[in-house]
Amino acid sequence: MITIYHLDRSRSERAVWLMEELSAAYEIEHFDRTATWEAAPDYKTLHPLGSSPVISVDGKVIAESGAVIEYLATTVGSGVLALSPGHSRYADYLYWFHFAECTLMNILTSEIMSERAGVDEQHASRIYNRRRRDELLAFVDDHLASNRFIAGDDFTAADIMITFPFTTTRAFAPFKIDAYPNIVAYLARIRSRPAYRRGQHIAGPNRDRTETQDK
Amino acid sequence: MITIYHLDRSRSERAVWLMEELSAAYEIEHFDRTATWEAAPDYKTLHPLGSSPVISVDGKVIAESGAVIEYLATTVGSGVLALSPGHSRYADYLYWFHFAECTLMNILTSEIMSERAGVDEQHASRIYNRRRRDELLAFVDDHLASNRFIAGDDFTAADIMITFPFTTTRAFAPFKIDAYPNIVAYLARIRSRPAYRRGQHIAGPNRDRTETQDK
Repeated sequence: MITIYHLDRSRSERAVWLMEELSAAYEIEHFDRTATWEAAPDYKTLHPLGSSPVISVDGKVIAESGAVIEYLATTVGSGVLALSPGHSRYADYLYWFHFAECTLMNILTSEIMSERAGVDEQHASRIYNRRRRDELLAFVDDHLASNRFIAGDDFTAADIMITFPFTTTRAFAPFKIDAYPNIVAYLARIRSRPAYRRGQHIAGPNRDRTETQDK
Repeated sequence: MITIYHLDRSRSERAVWLMEELSAAYEIEHFDRTATWEAAPDYKTLHPLGSSPVISVDGKVIAESGAVIEYLATTVGSGVLALSPGHSRYADYLYWFHFAECTLMNILTSEIMSERAGVDEQHASRIYNRRRRDELLAFVDDHLASNRFIAGDDFTAADIMITFPFTTTRAFAPFKIDAYPNIVAYLARIRSRPAYRRGQHIAGPNRDRTETQDK
């Protein structure tokens, strides 16, 4: 039994999307953010660090975005979304999987934290950070010029990791995505996936709140 | 054929340590930092982002710390340091593996970047950051009170990921490790490992520069 504790507008939408891609059964519990976009107090009791995502598998709590997605991708269903050591694109798969959170999201969340803490927008630290962000985005854009999905021809869990920085994250850390046409075209391919659309309907930033989402 | 391009005092010491744990063959090329601790210009040509670690496997370049360690742990030798989906501690292994870089190192590097960019040490952003750092360290310390290694009884690649923030990183982002007795005891267990000591001799911050290190 898998339960996703979905914090509104957070990384846990990745877990919902992955389960939809795998057509796997799960339950979902929704948690709101406060007016200042913090996680609601009841969410913070799920895990000692209060971070998102948090899931439970047969009662065991698992947190940390990369760990949750890697765990689900390798243990649920056919495991088809996790490339294995023998695959010709295995190294690329691992690279982009880890890059998405450790490098790209790191830079984007740094901009969010600086903004919230009142570091002047023109402070050297923020200028450096935005320059590095633009460098990373251009690097991804260049890669996507010749790759249909982030690790090659096939959709993988690395796509689930890399999409979030380009979508929901921009509500917190805005940047001009139109400057990166290959990322824009990639997002169109992502949005054409029925499982992505289902995931957004259930757990995206504009999710439908008029119906019971548990399934 | 595996080559590790080791940037002095950087995450690539993890790759060297892992190869020593596996008693696997590799070559190493050393790259210095400049007087301002930046990577030397020739290092930055190895990968478009100029980050560390960078390795090559049969001519293919792989970067990103988590990707490099996961790749090597799952493809070199017996793979004994990478827990598999069937293992009872698999979820813990993944959690700490990803936590080390995406959460803990993220906070530590944020402090480094703020310091270098001249954000006042008493600015709200840095006070917040150090408070979060202390929260993360206490969380790890608490976990290590009842776990010999980070994912349980056995040494794994997750230990290679989590050790670096407590050792070489402190030269860049100092904090008082003595406040965390279980982390201190854990580091003593790590330092008692012959492979760790060999790795430090070859690629640690105080590495022996008097001899040729290639092997």
